[in-house]
Amino acid sequence: MDPAINYCCTCGAPVAYRIPPGDSRPRHLCDACGAIHYRNPRLVVGTLPEWEDKILLCRRAIDPRYGKWTLPAGFMENDETVPQAAIRETREEANARVDLHDMYSLISVPQANQVHVFYRSRLKDLEFSPGEETLETALFSESEIPWEEIAFRTVAITLRHFFADRTSGSFGFHAEDLLPS
Amino acid sequence: MDPAINYCCTCGAPVAYRIPPGDSRPRHLCDACGAIHYRNPRLVVGTLPEWEDKILLCRRAIDPRYGKWTLPAGFMENDETVPQAAIRETREEANARVDLHDMYSLISVPQANQVHVFYRSRLKDLEFSPGEETLETALFSESEIPWEEIAFRTVAITLRHFFADRTSGSFGFHAEDLLPS
Repeated sequence: MDPAINYCCTCGAPVAYRIPPGDSRPRHLCDACGAIHYRNPRLVVGTLPEWEDKILLCRRAIDPRYGKWTLPAGFMENDETVPQAAIRETREEANARVDLHDMYSLISVPQANQVHVFYRSRLKDLEFSPGEETLETALFSESEIPWEEIAFRTVAITLRHFFADRTSGSFGFHAEDLLPS
Repeated sequence: MDPAINYCCTCGAPVAYRIPPGDSRPRHLCDACGAIHYRNPRLVVGTLPEWEDKILLCRRAIDPRYGKWTLPAGFMENDETVPQAAIRETREEANARVDLHDMYSLISVPQANQVHVFYRSRLKDLEFSPGEETLETALFSESEIPWEEIAFRTVAITLRHFFADRTSGSFGFHAEDLLPS
């Protein structure tokens, strides 16, 4: 999803791609102004919103996975904290207001250069509705979850942990890696 | 630390800075090729390496905080998982090999557009030494920690949690936010 780096975004000169002194990886370097243009993984942050025995899911109105169901989540922005990102994304995707509980899952997705983080949360009320990037919002009990229509494996993993933990009565923190499918 | 965005890194045209359709924040946009250049927080990942009752610290050979002590850590790279980043940074900063335990702290640092993550770990042996960005590596017991010379508040917070948890006999996972000082 990252645009190609052909030019220096600071001075506009063409960039080289080589290992800088003291580094071990090739980077996009500007020999004109000296800038180094690093690329690093992004955080995708969201919530698992509960209402009684049900979970709020959002049906995606954008690619990738248009039409599939997901937990409300999105890219963390500069100038915010991880919990602030989770609350903001839940509001943007589902027009929903939540009380945040503990951080619940953190899953590395190296094939996408992402790290996905979900918080358990509780809906403050039933005033939710689709945001701009959502076709539909709905509450699902465990038996109603559309497992074959879940947009992302990290969401399915997080939901499976949740229902297993709820059955066992003990909610842990789940940090793991998503292996390539 | 991010270079200024004046030009499109893909096509080299000057960029605009405005809110794209359907977005809520201004972005660097290229009207020539249509690219949107997002900037997002970075993950800084490291370990808290134990050897008997001592912790391995590194004295920084680079700015910021040249000469101050820190836990081995650094920017997560593309194509790796969070635990892989922790192990790699520990090797790079301290030439140290560790067995990773659980993720231990995750601290948002919105004023730096960073999220800091530390794992508890155990040194496999005493074969550690300063890496390229380190002046000195040494083991410290709790009473020897140079609290006034710790490079970053997230490191001090993580160390204080560790010693408190070790005293109590129960190691939790600590997710929190760093408020501006």
